[in-house]
Amino acid sequence: MGRWEPNAYERLQEAALELFGERGYERTTVEEIAARAGLTERTFFRYFTDKREVLFGGSKDLAEVIVAAIGGAPKELGPLDTVAVALEATSPIFEARRAHARKRQAVVASHAELRERELIKLSSLGDAIAESLRRRGVAKVAASLVAEAGIAVFKSAFERWVSDTKKHELAHHVRETLADLRVAAAEGTAVAAVRTAPRPSRSARRTST
Amino acid sequence: MGRWEPNAYERLQEAALELFGERGYERTTVEEIAARAGLTERTFFRYFTDKREVLFGGSKDLAEVIVAAIGGAPKELGPLDTVAVALEATSPIFEARRAHARKRQAVVASHAELRERELIKLSSLGDAIAESLRRRGVAKVAASLVAEAGIAVFKSAFERWVSDTKKHELAHHVRETLADLRVAAAEGTAVAAVRTAPRPSRSARRTST
Repeated sequence: MGRWEPNAYERLQEAALELFGERGYERTTVEEIAARAGLTERTFFRYFTDKREVLFGGSKDLAEVIVAAIGGAPKELGPLDTVAVALEATSPIFEARRAHARKRQAVVASHAELRERELIKLSSLGDAIAESLRRRGVAKVAASLVAEAGIAVFKSAFERWVSDTKKHELAHHVRETLADLRVAAAEGTAVAAVRTAPRPSRSARRTST
Repeated sequence: MGRWEPNAYERLQEAALELFGERGYERTTVEEIAARAGLTERTFFRYFTDKREVLFGGSKDLAEVIVAAIGGAPKELGPLDTVAVALEATSPIFEARRAHARKRQAVVASHAELRERELIKLSSLGDAIAESLRRRGVAKVAASLVAEAGIAVFKSAFERWVSDTKKHELAHHVRETLADLRVAAAEGTAVAAVRTAPRPSRSARRTST
């Protein structure tokens, strides 16, 4: 088999998710993943340190896109909007791989070890966001808080995106989730009744904030 | 040594933190912790499953206080305010043990394994908060988002409290942090126009997907 296989990275990811779905995460070996992808184990280890990393290999790219977008955001943007814009910038990464993301989410959700790994990756992402905000002049405590809130928005938006039957893109869900956070943060008592009612339209919510 | 030692739990915690500080977390054994506390290893294992749990034993109590406070919060309170009130209710737990909390924080912060354990405990706390909000009638997605935002507020408030030279209580820092989150969340609304300006319009992007 040749040294440079076309799309080896993607083929290995797809093969791994198929196998995790078919026989479970624990019972799938690297050897099987490589075989299913029509590649060698050696090729597998050129891309991933172990089978777990097949599920988390994308987190570095994600952090890079977000950090770059924070750095490039208009200076007049408030810190939370800066983070939201950066999260929206990740939309194209995910858009082509909704089915992949759904499968991955299912595998991660059903294994405590993987959920923990996900928490750690998200926490590192939060640290990277906080550092990027500080470089823009946001004070340290505010930067940490806004970064954590940004991660909360991302997690929530991602869950909505993965299960969205209307297939709106992730950026759409980031905006909706941020709008919801604003409503939840702004409201003391007045909007409490609205909460459980069917969701108002975007424009209706926008005028209420 | 008697079977029921007075304050055995607290004595073991104090002894453990002293030893972690003096010789490092890894190099401290359960035997040494028990000896420092003037207790037996057997007594140690009546309270903790291992030395790591000395640092995390309080998280169950914390979750119970928060869940009870959410359940008992006035119905008119918005979801984020409900969570904030519940976080403030934990203040008395911590107030008497600021020095303890500072030592614990230092040990946890300097060990990746312990930081990960902390993330997992906070994530479980977030799940408990979200479930409590749903029991109050908050929709599922909103409950998860607000719970995550609540955890963000708690982490940030806790860090401020631990390092506060003026010794304001935790409830004070929860209120301050929530106020900061509100400012950060509201700040962007005025510059919302800037936010979408450099990006293609919604409809343009939609056609491209």
